[in-house]
Amino acid sequence: MACVVSVSSALAKPHILKSPDSNITVIVDGDKELNYSVKAADVELISPSRLGVVMRDRSMGNKVSTKYRSATFSDDWTQPWGENKHISCAYNELAVVQTSSAGEFITRFRAFDDGIAFRYEWDLKDKETIVIDDELTEFNLQSGSMTWSIPGSFESYEHEFRSLILDDVEDANTPFTLQTPQGIFASIHEAALYDYPEMTLCRTEADVLKAELAPLPDGVKAYVPSRFATPWRTVQIAADAVGLINSSMILNLNEPSKIADTSWIKPQKYVGIWWGMHLGTQTWTMGSRHGATTENAVKYIDFAAANNIQGVLFEGWNEGWENWGGNQHFDYSKPYDDFNMEYIAEYARNRGIELWAHNETGGNIPEYEAAMDSAFAYYHKLGIHTLKTGYAGGFKGGYYHHSQYGVQHYQRVVELAAKYGLMIDAHEPIKETGIRRTWPNMMTREGARGMEWNAWSAGNSADYLCILPFTRLLSGPMDYTPGIFDIDYSRAKADKGRLEWNGPNADCCIKTTLARQIANWVIIYSPLQMAADQIENYEGHPAFQFFRDFDADCDWSRALQGEIGKYIVVARRAGDKYFLGAGTNSEARTLEVSLDFLKPGVTYRADIYGDLPGSTNPEDLCVISKSVVSTDVLTVSMLPTGGQAVVFTQLE
Amino acid sequence: MACVVSVSSALAKPHILKSPDSNITVIVDGDKELNYSVKAADVELISPSRLGVVMRDRSMGNKVSTKYRSATFSDDWTQPWGENKHISCAYNELAVVQTSSAGEFITRFRAFDDGIAFRYEWDLKDKETIVIDDELTEFNLQSGSMTWSIPGSFESYEHEFRSLILDDVEDANTPFTLQTPQGIFASIHEAALYDYPEMTLCRTEADVLKAELAPLPDGVKAYVPSRFATPWRTVQIAADAVGLINSSMILNLNEPSKIADTSWIKPQKYVGIWWGMHLGTQTWTMGSRHGATTENAVKYIDFAAANNIQGVLFEGWNEGWENWGGNQHFDYSKPYDDFNMEYIAEYARNRGIELWAHNETGGNIPEYEAAMDSAFAYYHKLGIHTLKTGYAGGFKGGYYHHSQYGVQHYQRVVELAAKYGLMIDAHEPIKETGIRRTWPNMMTREGARGMEWNAWSAGNSADYLCILPFTRLLSGPMDYTPGIFDIDYSRAKADKGRLEWNGPNADCCIKTTLARQIANWVIIYSPLQMAADQIENYEGHPAFQFFRDFDADCDWSRALQGEIGKYIVVARRAGDKYFLGAGTNSEARTLEVSLDFLKPGVTYRADIYGDLPGSTNPEDLCVISKSVVSTDVLTVSMLPTGGQAVVFTQLE
Repeated sequence: MACVVSVSSALAKPHILKSPDSNITVIVDGDKELNYSVKAADVELISPSRLGVVMRDRSMGNKVSTKYRSATFSDDWTQPWGENKHISCAYNELAVVQTSSAGEFITRFRAFDDGIAFRYEWDLKDKETIVIDDELTEFNLQSGSMTWSIPGSFESYEHEFRSLILDDVEDANTPFTLQTPQGIFASIHEAALYDYPEMTLCRTEADVLKAELAPLPDGVKAYVPSRFATPWRTVQIAADAVGLINSSMILNLNEPSKIADTSWIKPQKYVGIWWGMHLGTQTWTMGSRHGATTENAVKYIDFAAANNIQGVLFEGWNEGWENWGGNQHFDYSKPYDDFNMEYIAEYARNRGIELWAHNETGGNIPEYEAAMDSAFAYYHKLGIHTLKTGYAGGFKGGYYHHSQYGVQHYQRVVELAAKYGLMIDAHEPIKETGIRRTWPNMMTREGARGMEWNAWSAGNSADYLCILPFTRLLSGPMDYTPGIFDIDYSRAKADKGRLEWNGPNADCCIKTTLARQIANWVIIYSPLQMAADQIENYEGHPAFQFFRDFDADCDWSRALQGEIGKYIVVARRAGDKYFLGAGTNSEARTLEVSLDFLKPGVTYRADIYGDLPGSTNPEDLCVISKSVVSTDVLTVSMLPTGGQAVVFTQLE
Repeated sequence: MACVVSVSSALAKPHILKSPDSNITVIVDGDKELNYSVKAADVELISPSRLGVVMRDRSMGNKVSTKYRSATFSDDWTQPWGENKHISCAYNELAVVQTSSAGEFITRFRAFDDGIAFRYEWDLKDKETIVIDDELTEFNLQSGSMTWSIPGSFESYEHEFRSLILDDVEDANTPFTLQTPQGIFASIHEAALYDYPEMTLCRTEADVLKAELAPLPDGVKAYVPSRFATPWRTVQIAADAVGLINSSMILNLNEPSKIADTSWIKPQKYVGIWWGMHLGTQTWTMGSRHGATTENAVKYIDFAAANNIQGVLFEGWNEGWENWGGNQHFDYSKPYDDFNMEYIAEYARNRGIELWAHNETGGNIPEYEAAMDSAFAYYHKLGIHTLKTGYAGGFKGGYYHHSQYGVQHYQRVVELAAKYGLMIDAHEPIKETGIRRTWPNMMTREGARGMEWNAWSAGNSADYLCILPFTRLLSGPMDYTPGIFDIDYSRAKADKGRLEWNGPNADCCIKTTLARQIANWVIIYSPLQMAADQIENYEGHPAFQFFRDFDADCDWSRALQGEIGKYIVVARRAGDKYFLGAGTNSEARTLEVSLDFLKPGVTYRADIYGDLPGSTNPEDLCVISKSVVSTDVLTVSMLPTGGQAVVFTQLE
């Protein structure tokens, strides 16, 4: 029998929580059940909505007393890397503390200038494991809101975004971004997801989206301790769409770093043996087209060393790929015979290049968990500091990827990796909820349709790329693996033709201009940023100077302009250099961008990588170098599916 | 008493020599004295002109018999490097052989499709040294011809070009280029200058220019053996100005290579410690601003290795610069204490980079000749294959640089260098007369106002750069040291200010746009081609990709369009790649350039480095990348002093 905790409420009148700037208001109310509503600029954003979790066979009893604790918090903090290294954190808090003989149940609200959040915390006296059957949290939104999201799958985030009127949303994953008819922008997500299933959203009535947790195979949502705090349920709020991007609320809701010495954690640019396998011109398995060979490794390391690139990735370096398609089984410490790991690791060290490890698990979690300690020790011995993981396959035992089982596994990997000095780039991951603040070795992840979809599907449209920054990217870094220069794969096709690796998509190609591929290095933030094409497509290309100049270790970022699904303009600073990335959807667009983010009084050389006006060939490019100062306005002209990328270098 | 050899002539009627295509005619005639005239397309180019040399106290006597020997020659040959590696050679020859009891005197004429040449040869029976007091050769040109040349100095070629009506020419050096009122283009020069002074031209009457040889201190022009051949006196002839550039006649008049194994002779790109000294921000001598330090050497070697550059030059590496200004004295085998030559040489070898040696002699020939054998042995031991020489200073003993003494010295250096496997880049040289064919280690030379003049004089104008290809460059490769990116030296000035190295020219700057600096790498042919700026001005600059792509070892070249002093367009091929360089004078210009030199049926990516339309900042640049085929026409738009450079890379 289910019992709704925090049902009874002795609230005499609604309790009000305001953001530090007083613009956002949370109203906590409730007669029988606690509910909350949210206003922004005095306009209702969330109408009274249900709260609570369903614990199996547990009750707070009848004699529940309720107290309301208010607090104010303000502090600045720094992180070893991130879109912004220095972050301001200021919020007001209201904790509704319900106490009975069974223990304590707290519903904690925080109001920031850039959104609101709440979570459930409990400390039950019996100390026994609690079975969570459901979460009652609802978001009662405004009728007619426009929304952007992917479907609510518990298995994968790799879906096309939908632009839907709220009425048409059946289920969705987060970040779930919306614009109310009154023009307010908001995005629903979660923060600090540990030891709990992910939250998706499911429409229960008219404008109400309810939290839907990924279940375990037995139908239970989670088994949690008697003392526990759920992830934060978050609603980022902004007056314009780019305001959502410029929010740091998700990070501010996470705990400070648990890694004391973070000096080994370093953002980096990387190249790797990867795209060829997706194109079908190379293979992960050993054979005549094997990508991860010693010979290719040396080439890629040399290329990285010559091009101001810090890291190299080689997928398909270890035994096990030949088992694909049946019972996945990998050996995480055994290189293929044609990949001389010891030699390659030493060669990379001698050239000052970070060699990456790669672990594709195929979803075989028990095997990976049994092997990973010795595997990580092996990588540590080789001087490896970066590990890309992959989970392309259903989990054994019928577990959903995004269930509590999955969340726990991914977290074990992060913590073990920290012990061995490994930074993590997770593919087929759990969505980012800001845990990178607490575990700054959790660098980046996939968690959306990345570049690979251009190799064997209808591909990612420029419209898709104009929704991504306002949805998936709100949650944190993405290893999209940007920057394909050979837009129609002409060289790959000419070299040797493609294997029939993944069906009939032999005619697919990149769906943007080349300039947009470059701009994506700036737009799609990742502390591990890949130049994803095969290096022969970069060699000798004048546009590759951008990636040489680019710095994955930025200090500051700001989304300057943007409309969801239409266009985006982002600026970042790294040291003395600034970078700008702009992209449009399927429509040509000209934007006027103020350069007032540059340091005043300094002359910069702007190297502007843009579309070639009038061209119909997406590989055509126009690079303009000219002097600019902070009072200048840059005219950004983009062709359909186009973009523009700029490096600003101090001249004086 | 002077005696004019080949005075008497028994010619009954004029003898006619025609070029293989019959377009050019040489008429050899003479009653008392032998004379010649030249027609091109039936138009008189050289009216009857005097021939002969003046030998002191020598005579052929009275009983002179004259024979006329005709010959036809046709052959193709290849060279290890050059604007064109494969060269066609076809000419008809007429030798006027005069014989007497004193011996034999031959005036040998050759007519090519691209010009005519003649020289004097003798074999006198007494075997005694002959004193040459004068050369009587004249060029009786067409009144009103337009001419382009430098003055007739025996000491230096580093002069502004003059565009003069023939009447206004008093003296000139060669190549002496002209356009007749009838529209024919011609250029007077010499070929195969050995053991003889250089020929300048001096106006003796109305339209007559007479050969004026550089004298020795005693007034004698040359001391030569009793069996000897003078350099060829050459007149390149073409219907249009670029035809002069596309001529190979000078090389065709030189002998095949005397170096059997030329495998060690390799064109290369290079960077070096050089421009800083001319700017006055670095010094040749040791001290706080010493350029050639071990630290800088490592930086330059690393930069070369990372940027597809084969060679590095360090001027000021050896002791002696502190003696400058008085009695020049250098130690050619002793590095300064802060230049660890052994370490640097090994470091360069390990990184696959060619370390250059540099010998500034200051004009102290006796000291250099005494030292050079052991110095060259030292360089050879260090694995050095390239030597830049310098002669900035008057020769001891009152010898003119361009006298027989100078010609002999420079040749001794070339031949000794060949013995030690050294390629030569001579500054303050003897002019090139095609001896690179015979001594292919004689790679390149200065011999005109190079880049350095922009550092401490009014500089080289874009007009100057539009005359250079039609004059100095007709003679052969020039180490102009192109490619300054920091057009106004803003960084040098910002870094530390300039030393008052060379007077009051602190405000000088490069007199072209940046795009033109890039184009000059193509336009100004040199098998040793320098990126002359300080490397910090290249790092991170998108335009430097051009030099990375550029290949100094071209196979084929063609001047496509040009007007002397107005503009020039040149294409070259190296392997599968093509390069194009275009430049204009002080006027903006738009040219339509057919790409029919590209391989038909092949798609190329053209990376086009051009001026930024509408910009007034010469450092502004526009790089366009687009696909082209051989049937396309490229529109080349250039700003005043501007240019355009293109790399064509095969895509399929």
